Amino acid sequence: MADPRLIALDWGSTRLRAFLLGDGGEVLLTRQSDAGASTLSGTAAFEQALAVLVGDWRTEQPALPLLACGMVGSQHGWREAPYVACPADAAALAARSLQMHELLHFVPGLVDNAARPDVMRGEETQIVGALARHPELTADACLVLPGTHSKWARVRDGRVTGFATHMTGELFALLRQHSVLARLMPADGSSPASPEAFLKGVDAAREEGGLAHQLFAVRTLGLFKQLASEQLPDYLSGLLIGHEIASELKGATQQLALIGDPALCARYAQALARFGQPEPLLLDNTAPAGLWRLAQTMKLL
Amino acid sequence: MADPRLIALDWGSTRLRAFLLGDGGEVLLTRQSDAGASTLSGTAAFEQALAVLVGDWRTEQPALPLLACGMVGSQHGWREAPYVACPADAAALAARSLQMHELLHFVPGLVDNAARPDVMRGEETQIVGALARHPELTADACLVLPGTHSKWARVRDGRVTGFATHMTGELFALLRQHSVLARLMPADGSSPASPEAFLKGVDAAREEGGLAHQLFAVRTLGLFKQLASEQLPDYLSGLLIGHEIASELKGATQQLALIGDPALCARYAQALARFGQPEPLLLDNTAPAGLWRLAQTMKLL
Repeated sequence: MADPRLIALDWGSTRLRAFLLGDGGEVLLTRQSDAGASTLSGTAAFEQALAVLVGDWRTEQPALPLLACGMVGSQHGWREAPYVACPADAAALAARSLQMHELLHFVPGLVDNAARPDVMRGEETQIVGALARHPELTADACLVLPGTHSKWARVRDGRVTGFATHMTGELFALLRQHSVLARLMPADGSSPASPEAFLKGVDAAREEGGLAHQLFAVRTLGLFKQLASEQLPDYLSGLLIGHEIASELKGATQQLALIGDPALCARYAQALARFGQPEPLLLDNTAPAGLWRLAQTMKLL
Repeated sequence: MADPRLIALDWGSTRLRAFLLGDGGEVLLTRQSDAGASTLSGTAAFEQALAVLVGDWRTEQPALPLLACGMVGSQHGWREAPYVACPADAAALAARSLQMHELLHFVPGLVDNAARPDVMRGEETQIVGALARHPELTADACLVLPGTHSKWARVRDGRVTGFATHMTGELFALLRQHSVLARLMPADGSSPASPEAFLKGVDAAREEGGLAHQLFAVRTLGLFKQLASEQLPDYLSGLLIGHEIASELKGATQQLALIGDPALCARYAQALARFGQPEPLLLDNTAPAGLWRLAQTMKLL
C-alpha cells in the first residue's frame, strides 16, 4: 500500500466515515460506523468512536494528521467550529479551521446571511472537493447536494457566493410516517418504485399552487384511486423535489452539478429534465477530495 | 323552552357536536363529546355515540329529524355519503343527501375536480350557513376556513365554484412535534404567544423562496439567537399561514370571510392585514345555521 498521508473524516449527525488518503488524495482505505455526532456526548465518547474506527491507522502512523468535517463541529457535536460567511473559498475555510489537538482539525461551516441566516456543515467540504475534481465548475455553477436538508450552492470564481437549504428529505419522512397522507400508503419501504407517479408529482409542482395545498392531492388521488396506494410515496417525493427545483430555478440558469447518493441524485436529474434543464454533472461523495484539498491549503501535509 | 325542530350534528373526525335547533334555526341546546368519526367503527358504535349524547332529546321527541355533516359520512366513517361536484349550491347538496334511516340524513361532501381532485366534508355545511346568515356574501366572496386542513372556497351567485385545501395546521403540528425544528423549541404548549415572531414569519412568507427552504430559518434564527426559543413556534405558524395566504391571494381579490375558531381566525386576520388586505368578516361556527338551511331545503322540517 502507498504511504498514508491523511486521515480524512466525514463526521455527520448519524454516521462517521473515515478515509485513509495517500499521495494526491488517493483513497487507500474506507471505513464507516454509526457513531454519528448526534449519537455521542462528551469528549471521551468522541475519542472512543475515533479509536474504535481508526485507532490502528493512528498506532501504525502516529504522526498522521486528521481532518474532520460535518456536524462533529456543531454546537451539539464535539466542539463548535466557527461558521465562515459567504462569499468564501477553500482558503477562507482553511484559515478558520478549529484545532482540537496537535494532529486533529475541524473544518468550519458556512453561513449565508443574505436574508435570514442559512448554514451548512460538511457540504462546504464536498463543494471544495467537487471544485478540486472539476475545475470547470469554478467559474460559474450551481452545486446541488440533495438529502434530508438539501443544499443549493452558487459558485462564482471559485467562491461559494450563497446557498439555500431545503428541508425536502425531512418533510418527506415526516409526511410519509406521521401525516394523514401516510394512512393511505403501504408500510414504509414495502412499495416498488413508480417512476411514473414520481414524474406526475414533479409535473404538479410545475403548476401554480402552494406546497401545503398540493400535498393534499396525495390524499385525494389515493381516495379516488387515480393513483395506487403504492404509487403515493413516489408522487409525494416528486411533489417535494419538484417544489424545491421550481423555487431554485427562478434564478439564472447555470451549469448544474448534483453531488451525493447516486440513487437520490438520479431522481433529481429526472426531475430537472422535466423542467427542461440540460443534463447535470453527477458526482458521488466528494468529501474525501475536499478534505484533501483543505488539508493541503492548511499545510497539514 | 321553544319547541325543538331539528337535531343538527356536526360530526367530525375527532369530535361530535350536537345542536338542538328551534324555530328559525335558533340554537336551544348544545352538547359535545369526543366520539369523533375516526374514533368509532361499526354501526353499533355510531348508534351508541348518538344515544349517549342525544338519546334523551330523541326519547322526548321521537319524531325529531336528525341531519349530520362531516367525516361521519366519509369512507372511514359510519357510511359514505357522495361528493357533489363544484359548482354547487345548497339545493345541489340537499338533493344528494344520504338517508340512513327514516329520521337521519347525512349531508354530502364537495369535490372540486379542476386540476387534481380536492374534497371537503363538513365545511360545505359551514359555507351554506355563512351564506344563510350573510346574504351579502352570496354574490362574490372567498370563504376561508382555517384549521388542520384549511379550506379556501370561492363563492359566486350563491354557488361554491371551487376550493383548495391547505395542510397548514397538520404541517404545523408535524414540524412542531417531530422535526429537527422542534428540538430548539420549548415543550408543546408551554410558551407564551409572540405576536411579533408570528408577524416576522408572515413577512418572510411574503418574500421569494419556497416553503421547504424558509422553514429551515426556524432553525437558524434559533441557532443564532435572533429569535428566542419560545418565539420559534409563532414564527413557524406565521410562515405556514403566510405561505397559505400568499398562494391564495394570487387570484382576484374578493370579499374575504374567515369562519371557525375565533383565536385561529384572529391569527389569519392579522396575517391578511400584513398582506394589505381589508378587514375580513369574522364568523364563528356556522355549521348549525348550515344544517338548518339544508334541512329546510330537504323539507325535513
